[in-house]
Amino acid sequence: MDIMPRADGHVLVLPRAPSRNILDIDPGDMAAVMATTQRVARAQMAAFGADGITVQHFCEGAGGQVVFHTHVHVLPRHEGVALRPPGHIADASVLERHAEKIRAALSR
Amino acid sequence: MDIMPRADGHVLVLPRAPSRNILDIDPGDMAAVMATTQRVARAQMAAFGADGITVQHFCEGAGGQVVFHTHVHVLPRHEGVALRPPGHIADASVLERHAEKIRAALSR
Repeated sequence: MDIMPRADGHVLVLPRAPSRNILDIDPGDMAAVMATTQRVARAQMAAFGADGITVQHFCEGAGGQVVFHTHVHVLPRHEGVALRPPGHIADASVLERHAEKIRAALSR
Repeated sequence: MDIMPRADGHVLVLPRAPSRNILDIDPGDMAAVMATTQRVARAQMAAFGADGITVQHFCEGAGGQVVFHTHVHVLPRHEGVALRPPGHIADASVLERHAEKIRAALSR
């Protein structure tokens, strides 16, 4: 879970192997990240009754990257609801509840 | 090229095979899209002297999707330069010039 979620259920998907971003990641690692992103997106649709998903990858500071290990943002979206501004740390209990909903959807 | 570029050199990467978005695309097709996205991102860095790249995938209307064939947005970014607002069609000659710069970088 992103600890500064821009939407409820905002997940980060990342590879185990070190890489900085899309410029240097091994294509096989990127494929694995995207396969996981697909599973997470479907689980978010079910877990949050989402209407859509926004997927973002920020590469280098100018591209929006803050943490320099490759990661993909996966955000459940609802019709007419804008993303929240970045930078607000969520309550740990809220994050845990949302994580549990996603885990339950993934295991179905 | 995105005909409504939010940054100079804004590219769309899409699979040949039909799919709607990340919820239904074949994982192999998604892997191919991302491998191409990596090549495009590197070419954009060189072609535009970019400082970074932003990658976006919008899934369903609530996620920001407007055209319902899977596509990934790849945007060259420069330090301190915000994305332009969406919805403004660029001059065809400008798009062609930017496409040519990317093609040249891809062939190097």
